[in-house]
Amino acid sequence: MLQITRPTLLLDRTTCKANIRKMFNKAERHHVQLIPHFKTHQSASIGKWFREEGVKAITVTSVKMAEYFAGRGWVDITIAFPVNVLETEQINALAEKVDLRIFLNSKEAAKVLKEQLRTPVKFYIEIDVGDHRSGIDPANLSAIAGILELTKGSYLKFDGFYTHAGHTYSAASPREVEEISGLFLKKLRALKSHFRQTYPNLKLAFGDTPSCSIIEDFEGIDSIHPGNFVYYDLVQNSIGANTLEEIAICLAVPVVSVHPERQEVVVHSGWVHQGKDSLTDSEGNTYFGLVVSLTEDSWSAPIPGGRVIKLSQEHGVISLPQEMTDQVKVGDVLGILPVHACATAFMMGELETLEGEKLQMMPR
Amino acid sequence: MLQITRPTLLLDRTTCKANIRKMFNKAERHHVQLIPHFKTHQSASIGKWFREEGVKAITVTSVKMAEYFAGRGWVDITIAFPVNVLETEQINALAEKVDLRIFLNSKEAAKVLKEQLRTPVKFYIEIDVGDHRSGIDPANLSAIAGILELTKGSYLKFDGFYTHAGHTYSAASPREVEEISGLFLKKLRALKSHFRQTYPNLKLAFGDTPSCSIIEDFEGIDSIHPGNFVYYDLVQNSIGANTLEEIAICLAVPVVSVHPERQEVVVHSGWVHQGKDSLTDSEGNTYFGLVVSLTEDSWSAPIPGGRVIKLSQEHGVISLPQEMTDQVKVGDVLGILPVHACATAFMMGELETLEGEKLQMMPR
Repeated sequence: MLQITRPTLLLDRTTCKANIRKMFNKAERHHVQLIPHFKTHQSASIGKWFREEGVKAITVTSVKMAEYFAGRGWVDITIAFPVNVLETEQINALAEKVDLRIFLNSKEAAKVLKEQLRTPVKFYIEIDVGDHRSGIDPANLSAIAGILELTKGSYLKFDGFYTHAGHTYSAASPREVEEISGLFLKKLRALKSHFRQTYPNLKLAFGDTPSCSIIEDFEGIDSIHPGNFVYYDLVQNSIGANTLEEIAICLAVPVVSVHPERQEVVVHSGWVHQGKDSLTDSEGNTYFGLVVSLTEDSWSAPIPGGRVIKLSQEHGVISLPQEMTDQVKVGDVLGILPVHACATAFMMGELETLEGEKLQMMPR
Repeated sequence: MLQITRPTLLLDRTTCKANIRKMFNKAERHHVQLIPHFKTHQSASIGKWFREEGVKAITVTSVKMAEYFAGRGWVDITIAFPVNVLETEQINALAEKVDLRIFLNSKEAAKVLKEQLRTPVKFYIEIDVGDHRSGIDPANLSAIAGILELTKGSYLKFDGFYTHAGHTYSAASPREVEEISGLFLKKLRALKSHFRQTYPNLKLAFGDTPSCSIIEDFEGIDSIHPGNFVYYDLVQNSIGANTLEEIAICLAVPVVSVHPERQEVVVHSGWVHQGKDSLTDSEGNTYFGLVVSLTEDSWSAPIPGGRVIKLSQEHGVISLPQEMTDQVKVGDVLGILPVHACATAFMMGELETLEGEKLQMMPR
């Protein structure tokens, strides 16, 4: 077992690599390209494991993250975020080095880029299929046509439509995910039909981990861009995207006080370590992680009734069954399965494999 | 005005220094020592502003943070967190360099430290005055006496009682904060009376920003340890601890898309930038920050109706009045007043003053 004295984000390399392989194989089987989102791990080391599996192109969520991975050997990068026109200088610099794709969702942004780009850049038009975060309503064909018209003959090269169906995160079952994805895939395919006469090579892309994990119908889709599946977590598990055994990270945390009278222990694990995400059970109780025991070479299944029930900046309060609070001692180390892996990884900024290798992430 | 192209945490130095001075003067007036909590800013540069005001001792929330500030000239440090007995090695090293205070809340922790300490360390016993996070129930005099008995003749030197009344954060008015603090101060004073025959120099300490900002009765108290007041925020404002003008930080964020049809704009400001804290208004609407305009040399009062209503990893969705969504353009920069300043500062990890000076924080 590792020597743990402070909150440490453990990574089970075997599980993580199996998650990568499974998604890669699924993409191959469906003849879609896996262009994984690297926002979850933000780590050059873990990026290498994707490359070893055969991944050649990646997705990121900011110009800064694109710069980080471009500096680490990645040459095909999609920035899955409405383009920030204040960063055209950096986009120009990136596009000279890598095959770059951006999101272009408005004529206003297109006008700025058309003027300021010095090198060709491919773009997706982001489609809002119901999440109402960013993107264009698929029914708004004139808005899409307006952008396409404006970019003709410029350095901006239309590559297709991309959607992030964030509303699958509110699904409570694989069946619901299939229903939601059935609807958004229909909208994407209709767009392809509409525009493919003018743009025969246009592509369809989407990215949410619930859909990519659960559905088996990828007809007409060219690429998938999930990110979270590299680690998975309790949110994805609650949707039915993964089993608890497929969760590849676990936050190891020191016990600093034991309160048998209220069946609770306090651990060094606040929102600065795990993030602030929570789940609510069927009785309306909120919790911030499930508790596991650390074993000789990994971690156990969740301890029944073991939950993080309260979080502040550095304190976590854990509820445990009576027999456990009678056993746990100050100085023990417990494990926490993350509610939201992207958040926990981002907060910690570094991982340690079960073999003791430290893996760095992109600096904040 | 600064050239902003990416999310940037702006710091109004004048407001920040005024917050520090006001709290320092209040402490002087009440003859209590201000031993500010540095977990909010985690910055050596801002630490200097406290020193310039006359502050000599500081509070932190982890051994790691104590190490950071001990390496930057601070020689009197209180670690306001139940001691982690897995870090006795680091505590020994720190105690050789600085005047160190820790929290000792159990006989179990006391036994480990008694064995492993190689140099004197002062300790507070943390008192749980109703927040039920960590600490000992003030009615449990035998638990307190047990720790004191065990530490006699050891390197562990009893210094007094410390409490964090985290439940003032649920107060909705200064009056409520005064009621809560009235109750917990009574408990602390009773403890002092009880133990001062044996420990005539024992001290009383507490730390929450709402109490320290609002109350005027500090009788019997030796030191106060607030942290958040250095920046203040919307949570503290909702309690009545500060005015909106006293908020010293503002997150400057680029507009990446405008949706006049739903009176919303999307900005580059996700939970990786601002944190995930929210407030709920009287109608039950949740929001993640108030929106301001950036001015030539600072920022405006909140735009009526301007709120961050949705957050994901890097996207923020802002609701604005119709007349504003008609004006705002892609490439504009808006400002967000933070719901929880500790979180926003931690997420950003760096600040920029209105004069353009970059201030670093402790590395993650």
